[in-house]
Amino acid sequence: MNSIKELLNHQQEDWSLDQRFYKDMSIFDLEKHNIFYNSWIFIGHESQIPNKGDFFVYKLLDEEIIVLRNKENKVKAFFNVCRHRGSRVCLEEKGNTSRFTCPYHSWTYNLDGKLLAAKSLREGIEKSELGLHPCNIESASGMLLINLSDNPESLKNLQSDLKEPFEMFGFKDLKVAAHKNYPIASNWKLAVENYQECYHCGPAHPEYSLSHSLKIEDEPGFDEAQEKMMKNLDSCGLKDIEVNKDFSNKDPDQEQYAYSRYALFDGYMTGSKDGKPLAPLLGGIKEFNQGCSDFNIGPVSYFLAYCDHIVGYIFTPTSQDQCQCDIYWLVNKDAEENKDYDKEKLMWLWDVTTYADETIIVNNQKGVNSIKYQSGPYTDKEHSTRRFIKWYLSELKSYAL
Amino acid sequence: MNSIKELLNHQQEDWSLDQRFYKDMSIFDLEKHNIFYNSWIFIGHESQIPNKGDFFVYKLLDEEIIVLRNKENKVKAFFNVCRHRGSRVCLEEKGNTSRFTCPYHSWTYNLDGKLLAAKSLREGIEKSELGLHPCNIESASGMLLINLSDNPESLKNLQSDLKEPFEMFGFKDLKVAAHKNYPIASNWKLAVENYQECYHCGPAHPEYSLSHSLKIEDEPGFDEAQEKMMKNLDSCGLKDIEVNKDFSNKDPDQEQYAYSRYALFDGYMTGSKDGKPLAPLLGGIKEFNQGCSDFNIGPVSYFLAYCDHIVGYIFTPTSQDQCQCDIYWLVNKDAEENKDYDKEKLMWLWDVTTYADETIIVNNQKGVNSIKYQSGPYTDKEHSTRRFIKWYLSELKSYAL
Amino acid sequence: MNSIKELLNHQQEDWSLDQRFYKDMSIFDLEKHNIFYNSWIFIGHESQIPNKGDFFVYKLLDEEIIVLRNKENKVKAFFNVCRHRGSRVCLEEKGNTSRFTCPYHSWTYNLDGKLLAAKSLREGIEKSELGLHPCNIESASGMLLINLSDNPESLKNLQSDLKEPFEMFGFKDLKVAAHKNYPIASNWKLAVENYQECYHCGPAHPEYSLSHSLKIEDEPGFDEAQEKMMKNLDSCGLKDIEVNKDFSNKDPDQEQYAYSRYALFDGYMTGSKDGKPLAPLLGGIKEFNQGCSDFNIGPVSYFLAYCDHIVGYIFTPTSQDQCQCDIYWLVNKDAEENKDYDKEKLMWLWDVTTYADETIIVNNQKGVNSIKYQSGPYTDKEHSTRRFIKWYLSELKSYAL
Repeated sequence: MNSIKELLNHQQEDWSLDQRFYKDMSIFDLEKHNIFYNSWIFIGHESQIPNKGDFFVYKLLDEEIIVLRNKENKVKAFFNVCRHRGSRVCLEEKGNTSRFTCPYHSWTYNLDGKLLAAKSLREGIEKSELGLHPCNIESASGMLLINLSDNPESLKNLQSDLKEPFEMFGFKDLKVAAHKNYPIASNWKLAVENYQECYHCGPAHPEYSLSHSLKIEDEPGFDEAQEKMMKNLDSCGLKDIEVNKDFSNKDPDQEQYAYSRYALFDGYMTGSKDGKPLAPLLGGIKEFNQGCSDFNIGPVSYFLAYCDHIVGYIFTPTSQDQCQCDIYWLVNKDAEENKDYDKEKLMWLWDVTTYADETIIVNNQKGVNSIKYQSGPYTDKEHSTRRFIKWYLSELKSYAL
Repeated sequence: MNSIKELLNHQQEDWSLDQRFYKDMSIFDLEKHNIFYNSWIFIGHESQIPNKGDFFVYKLLDEEIIVLRNKENKVKAFFNVCRHRGSRVCLEEKGNTSRFTCPYHSWTYNLDGKLLAAKSLREGIEKSELGLHPCNIESASGMLLINLSDNPESLKNLQSDLKEPFEMFGFKDLKVAAHKNYPIASNWKLAVENYQECYHCGPAHPEYSLSHSLKIEDEPGFDEAQEKMMKNLDSCGLKDIEVNKDFSNKDPDQEQYAYSRYALFDGYMTGSKDGKPLAPLLGGIKEFNQGCSDFNIGPVSYFLAYCDHIVGYIFTPTSQDQCQCDIYWLVNKDAEENKDYDKEKLMWLWDVTTYADETIIVNNQKGVNSIKYQSGPYTDKEHSTRRFIKWYLSELKSYAL
Repeated sequence: MNSIKELLNHQQEDWSLDQRFYKDMSIFDLEKHNIFYNSWIFIGHESQIPNKGDFFVYKLLDEEIIVLRNKENKVKAFFNVCRHRGSRVCLEEKGNTSRFTCPYHSWTYNLDGKLLAAKSLREGIEKSELGLHPCNIESASGMLLINLSDNPESLKNLQSDLKEPFEMFGFKDLKVAAHKNYPIASNWKLAVENYQECYHCGPAHPEYSLSHSLKIEDEPGFDEAQEKMMKNLDSCGLKDIEVNKDFSNKDPDQEQYAYSRYALFDGYMTGSKDGKPLAPLLGGIKEFNQGCSDFNIGPVSYFLAYCDHIVGYIFTPTSQDQCQCDIYWLVNKDAEENKDYDKEKLMWLWDVTTYADETIIVNNQKGVNSIKYQSGPYTDKEHSTRRFIKWYLSELKSYAL
């Protein structure tokens, strides 16, 4: 542990991370247990399990979580590990059931994880002590968040501070129109660092740059678009709120979150190729406008909300040198595919942008592996990445001590 | 080594193993050298090398053993490692030869491993000291067993205690009718644990359960079948012997072994789909009966003997988290394929059962990898698995000290 | 480090290396940084970048080096690592450019590695301090050699001692007629050991043995051919020079090198199937003769020079248990493919020989992995391999202290 502490002491502020943060297996182990198994992560939407007994299985590294709706209509989550000898209990990816019977020795659990049946138990072994291990799960206006820790940080402030924007976009009335997994051959931090800044958007993302501000102050047309959007806020009943409790500003004992809003360029009402709508208006929004909102939910789940759809970005590791980006496209629950929205058009912008980012991130990792890689200076345009790295280092400092 | 000792001290008796026994690389290294390189393992039958000069190569992890019949008609085994610079000497899987010439520099060895020729040896280097390293090999009524250790445990008691059943089934007059390798993505112990219990056979093996007792006392029809079989023993000249020197009951300095016998259900004369014979009667057996015998030979080689064929099951690791099951189907040496037996029918039961077990074992490993996996209670129906685990822990204790 | 020292102390002179030298990850790390990142390695010929702005990218393990010709017509090399956040700057394998613009954030470098443009740099960050890291590169009569160390050994003695043979074969006027990469599933040292001796050529290389001496004193025809060749030296203006500053004889602070010459058998004027010429005469050679020259340039780059072409052999690791052989076939720069030479015929001998060696080396590695592998005696015919091993051990000794 000493060497990690030394590494942390030598890391220069506002310069990119030392190579070992991206390669050291012992650092990845710390991250796995203290970040990924100890943060709230978006895993889907309540609409995926509308009925009692509906379930799906979420996978993260060696973990599998059964997410279900129980007989009391409550969403619950359990580790997919039999309490007998550890077999996976549920082998299906999703379905509807009234109980889970382990395929190995038929130990049977109900929808509250309680062990109902186990043949030939030895004397003194109590079924009541052998239920499935529960996993913390919470619904944030329909967005399902899990936390694998037994003592997770609270979502209380997040739920109250984001109540208004969640309502405006009708988060509870969404459905998943599409989901796609993008494997990336890099350490997960390089993918998050990439997502957190738009310094690269000009050179790398011509499609994105047509409609979205690069958040560079002197960008032509930005101020006008921003002003127009602000006027428009009233029409959808939203005050100009902005919260920023993520990364270095997060509350102690509360999960981090952030919300902010900015304008698309003139002629763009949503993240489409031609600027035209992609799906029916969401929630309380009464007419199309240029607004585009950013949500951060916990450290690795991000959402972009347009008037007519929401794009969720979730970054998770698959190993120390591989990660993945899961993208969800969410639309109003009543929207019908091919009638109200075209899946391909809906996915276009962030699909093409994510493939471009994948190439960038993989080439970043390759260079970071070199003996000559050394920390480089973050620029003024990488403020969010800097805040992410600052948070990351302070987290690591607290685990490594 | 301290941490393994602590792990052993914390392991609760009759509860499944701690996760680290299945994942820790240093534990696997101990197992490799102290179990797999220090136990007798079944590798084939003498009938595979009937003539002088016949040979085949057996592979286990990084080791290759040349098994051959020498000019004095004796079975011998040698490590496939040239004494010059270490090249594989024999590149063929099997064949007949009068000597082995290394493909690198033509060093040539005879069938007793003696170095016959090596050009340009420096002065003072003696050919007589550079023979192939011998490997211990013994024939147990035709069954070839090897042990990679220089000081293997004795097979004396095994040979004498199993003499009678070996004779009844005519082990020395068998041939290999089929051999198949089943890779399993799990630590080897999960595969052996699975093989050792039939608690799972009801839910998992409908084919097996038709004909074979699950060894659950109150099983309908079990007692009657058992009684009928016992009466039948006389007709094949076998006393009701049972030996049990395996796992926790093994003799010190003697390799472990066990033999027991039970009855198939009514209507089943062998392990076939329809209960009808699959091949000619074996050895001294005079008429078909419901008997089904279990042999354990060393810690990882198991045999099921029916009246007309024998199925050998050998479990070995290919890495710390991968293993394999080698199955041999043995019939009377004079039986002719397609005339006296049908290979597909012969293999059916244990082929379908092993594929089912593979799925089970792999899902067991997946759950065991979870942060929430913890030791679970073995039931009364898993007594053999418990004995295997008890033996395993005592072995590990003796190496780790 | 202690264990490596012990290993070195136990290693017997003139016997093959202990298994751990081929398998131990910490030894490979030492080799990587002290041999491969600290020796001169052949990477190509100047003729590959004839014009200003021409470049190609050389790859070795995690490193990529951009090799280019700058505006002053000088050959330069730079690590392909952006000084901002470490991305690969150049994604093309070769081409012509006036500058390199990083695909991530458009930082732009000129052909001298100087940072020309980087938007939004924070105050106090100087572009002048953020140039691409240079890599040492030198041209030895057109042969491009790189050394990744900041303090490489000198090439001064090599350049002067090899001047004459370089001139005779017209090294500066060559071109790469073919290049092929041969992956080998072995530790790199087994590949070099193989290359360094011809004790195996008789049994393993019938094609090679037709034309090339196995350097065994009593070989029929060897002395006559050797004598004839020596007479022939005058006709190509070369004295009978031989230098031997490689491996155990190398000068301190100078990179190692060697040059020697021997005769092909009667009827062979070059390394062709039928002994007939393969390409136009090289450099100062006036008529075909039986001469065949060996060059060693640094520890892992070897060249065979015939009258009409040169074959370069470069051995590098791709991991601790995998390596590769890069072979270059070089002919006079004015020779035209299909007119003056046939690529397939040109490549035949060393292509077939290298595939044969690959099989040998892989089987050597397999045996070396065995628990029964132990050091074996090098013979009188493996003197070069012995010298290589002696050098290797002394190098390791100096790093491991």
